[in-house]
Amino acid sequence: MSTKSFSLAELAEFLGCEYRGDATHRVTAIAPLSDASDSQITFVAQDKYLAQLAGISPGIVVLREKHAAAYSGNRILAADPYLAYARLSALFNPRSPLSKEIHPTAIVDSSAVLADGVAVGPNCVIGANVRVGQGTEIHAGTVIGEATIVGDNCRLYPRVTLYDRVTIGDRVTVHSGAVIGADGFGFAPSRTDGWVKIEQLASVRIGNNVEIGANTTIDRGALHDTVVEDGAIIDNLVHLAHGVSIGEGTAIAACVGIAGSTTVGKNCLLGGAVGISGHLHIADNTQFHGGTVVTRHVSEPGSYASAAPMQEVRAWRRNSVRYTQLDEMAYRLRKLEKEQ
Amino acid sequence: MSTKSFSLAELAEFLGCEYRGDATHRVTAIAPLSDASDSQITFVAQDKYLAQLAGISPGIVVLREKHAAAYSGNRILAADPYLAYARLSALFNPRSPLSKEIHPTAIVDSSAVLADGVAVGPNCVIGANVRVGQGTEIHAGTVIGEATIVGDNCRLYPRVTLYDRVTIGDRVTVHSGAVIGADGFGFAPSRTDGWVKIEQLASVRIGNNVEIGANTTIDRGALHDTVVEDGAIIDNLVHLAHGVSIGEGTAIAACVGIAGSTTVGKNCLLGGAVGISGHLHIADNTQFHGGTVVTRHVSEPGSYASAAPMQEVRAWRRNSVRYTQLDEMAYRLRKLEKEQ
Amino acid sequence: MSTKSFSLAELAEFLGCEYRGDATHRVTAIAPLSDASDSQITFVAQDKYLAQLAGISPGIVVLREKHAAAYSGNRILAADPYLAYARLSALFNPRSPLSKEIHPTAIVDSSAVLADGVAVGPNCVIGANVRVGQGTEIHAGTVIGEATIVGDNCRLYPRVTLYDRVTIGDRVTVHSGAVIGADGFGFAPSRTDGWVKIEQLASVRIGNNVEIGANTTIDRGALHDTVVEDGAIIDNLVHLAHGVSIGEGTAIAACVGIAGSTTVGKNCLLGGAVGISGHLHIADNTQFHGGTVVTRHVSEPGSYASAAPMQEVRAWRRNSVRYTQLDEMAYRLRKLEKEQ
Repeated sequence: MSTKSFSLAELAEFLGCEYRGDATHRVTAIAPLSDASDSQITFVAQDKYLAQLAGISPGIVVLREKHAAAYSGNRILAADPYLAYARLSALFNPRSPLSKEIHPTAIVDSSAVLADGVAVGPNCVIGANVRVGQGTEIHAGTVIGEATIVGDNCRLYPRVTLYDRVTIGDRVTVHSGAVIGADGFGFAPSRTDGWVKIEQLASVRIGNNVEIGANTTIDRGALHDTVVEDGAIIDNLVHLAHGVSIGEGTAIAACVGIAGSTTVGKNCLLGGAVGISGHLHIADNTQFHGGTVVTRHVSEPGSYASAAPMQEVRAWRRNSVRYTQLDEMAYRLRKLEKEQ
Repeated sequence: MSTKSFSLAELAEFLGCEYRGDATHRVTAIAPLSDASDSQITFVAQDKYLAQLAGISPGIVVLREKHAAAYSGNRILAADPYLAYARLSALFNPRSPLSKEIHPTAIVDSSAVLADGVAVGPNCVIGANVRVGQGTEIHAGTVIGEATIVGDNCRLYPRVTLYDRVTIGDRVTVHSGAVIGADGFGFAPSRTDGWVKIEQLASVRIGNNVEIGANTTIDRGALHDTVVEDGAIIDNLVHLAHGVSIGEGTAIAACVGIAGSTTVGKNCLLGGAVGISGHLHIADNTQFHGGTVVTRHVSEPGSYASAAPMQEVRAWRRNSVRYTQLDEMAYRLRKLEKEQ
Repeated sequence: MSTKSFSLAELAEFLGCEYRGDATHRVTAIAPLSDASDSQITFVAQDKYLAQLAGISPGIVVLREKHAAAYSGNRILAADPYLAYARLSALFNPRSPLSKEIHPTAIVDSSAVLADGVAVGPNCVIGANVRVGQGTEIHAGTVIGEATIVGDNCRLYPRVTLYDRVTIGDRVTVHSGAVIGADGFGFAPSRTDGWVKIEQLASVRIGNNVEIGANTTIDRGALHDTVVEDGAIIDNLVHLAHGVSIGEGTAIAACVGIAGSTTVGKNCLLGGAVGISGHLHIADNTQFHGGTVVTRHVSEPGSYASAAPMQEVRAWRRNSVRYTQLDEMAYRLRKLEKEQ
């Protein structure tokens, strides 16, 4: 896909690593270990995959330093080959940057301030008093509401919506269809008028180096801003409700939903489809397995799960009935113990 | 954020409540109880928060009538301070209304009928035979299909899609990215041609005073319309399948999915990520905790839940294994009881 | 809704079925069994509904061949009335085709190649080197990235995003808001720089005859393409992560999430809100009930479930506590058995 090519020496220098082999050998792409050919670079991140090198002839392999002698081909010795692969991926990315212009079909309010080198794609709509920092790309069909601020070197993919008064830091990527700053789900019940809407008067603040996935929604706060701190990464179809706070470096997998005013600490890992109730505090470094339903505070960092085990349907039916009798079973067990 | 200001007397009159203190004292914003300053109004909705008034000096506090004597500052006495807060939030909302014009870039079919005072933002597309009622705002990039009807004083935020022949009542808010009227997921299996699509010939009807969250999807019906009754409120990333019916005043939190032809009654409360199977009837006033999986009819209103308890991962693993042995354990317990 | 009309003889011929009754009787719509009037056609797909024919007077009924004598009105005898209904639904579909033109507001790169009879709606954006096959409809506001290929007779509803280098087969329907080809969620942890993004260098390949629901997201792969094989059908708000592979004819209901590099076989049925962990293999013909959390390979086709049973909240609380004590209960039970 890419027509760029790099030599072994160039790549080792880029990574700040030592190498062995033919310094001039060139590769044009990264490939998975199973497929890598002579014109490609691959990597061995885990010891268990080392044996697979026997069957292939990759152009270059990134290996752990301790495996330097285990392979005789062109190789780069890295402390962390997986991290090296991540850094290399940027070199081989074929993505074209958006043309650094305001597309003639973009509708930019005259009071908006766009820094130098901002790219605005077709059919974007940028409201009054918006500010956009240098080097930011705003792709086709993205809509930015009044007084919203977007930092430097961000990338808003096609069809993103930022509502009014949202703040986005530097180097933030927002994927297509994400909606940031829609109203939090706040209503007061009334006898006479049904649900009375609580206008969501606060907003959303996103830090630096954040990634936000496709069709994810991050609602604005009622009286406190919804906050995503620096370096947090958020996958697709995630819902962050009003007033939620996500700590630095926390990773949130797809389909997670976090209810209002919950605070998730730093460096947490949330598996897919985790659901967290409102008004909870989750400690730094907490990990939730996929599908965990969290209904209480977590003050001890650790690894937590709740999903019931998958079973063949007939067994599942029988055991499910017993689940609803568990408390009774416990009493019967206690009774037997006493009667002994 | 807002530059509007209101006096104690004005706010008490707006709420239809009595007040105590300096009638002329002015505030410019609502603040949470913990932060409220002299130029802000706050509220105490629950008794347990009353003590917090000791440490702050808010401009005005909305209190329950029975707490009138518990605080000596400027105060408004309300039967329901949380509801009063909801009503006040509309006063302090800084949102600008959309300019009451058809933006020159909007593409409005010549057969569409837009009432007076309709605002249509940039790049909207409005199809043939669409009708839109007075005072409705249609924000940038929203697409409305043929013969769809939108009532009065609705607000469709940016990038909403309404497919053909959808009906939306009055005072309905639809947040960005919501899709109403896409095809229900109907296919007939065939040996020769795989899944044969069932065209979804009916549509979607949304009542009055409904709110629909960002990136929520409400599919059109196959032969019966999908229906959302008056006053229902629906959060983000919710899925309502074809032929679903949601009763008046029912509240649906984020990430809920309801399968085809299920009827949810009036004034139900569905927590986040609830999943309901198809062809079920759920009684009025039913409540489901977050994460509940509903696979049977609910004829008795009440509060229901299904999510398994969160546990530290090692305990969860051990107990999960036992879960798959529950039926066997029950038999062994019964055997012990008999043998006694 | 439709003004088309068809006679009994015409419909029987269209279906390739025998009929009984007045060959000239005409109907203008399909109706559910409970509502069908003299100008409508309905069907009885299951024996249990046959008795309902007693109370109504439909214009035509599609019945199983074995029920030919059970009803004396106009009737079509079909091996599979539900499949016949699916085929009839296409006849009665009132949807207008998109006008076969490139709308003047569409922005089509000069290097894009659009075949004859392609329809491109208002405000679409089609990037460099895109190819679109004959008869494909691209509705308003859809954005297609560079070098993406869309086959023949596809329909992309309003506001779809296809990123760069995605491949879509023939007769594929993509509903509004779907995002195909956004970056997979790949990051390498680093001590010094937090999460280092892994550029997603591969892409997405969608086969023929695939349907993709509203606001569904299908991410591009890191080094291997994400793949959806021919005839798979996918509902709304589904998430397919990078490198996922979905086999031929597999049906995926709404709100499902599948983590990275998982392979789902052919002709599987995934109920709503199923979640599947990454790097798993799921055998052909596997079925998962709604809400199943799948954390292990499935090598035996069968029907699987994991959701815990719904209970009234007080019982659920008691039984949930016991769930966390299950392993201990099992030991106590064992002890009692030994002591006998």
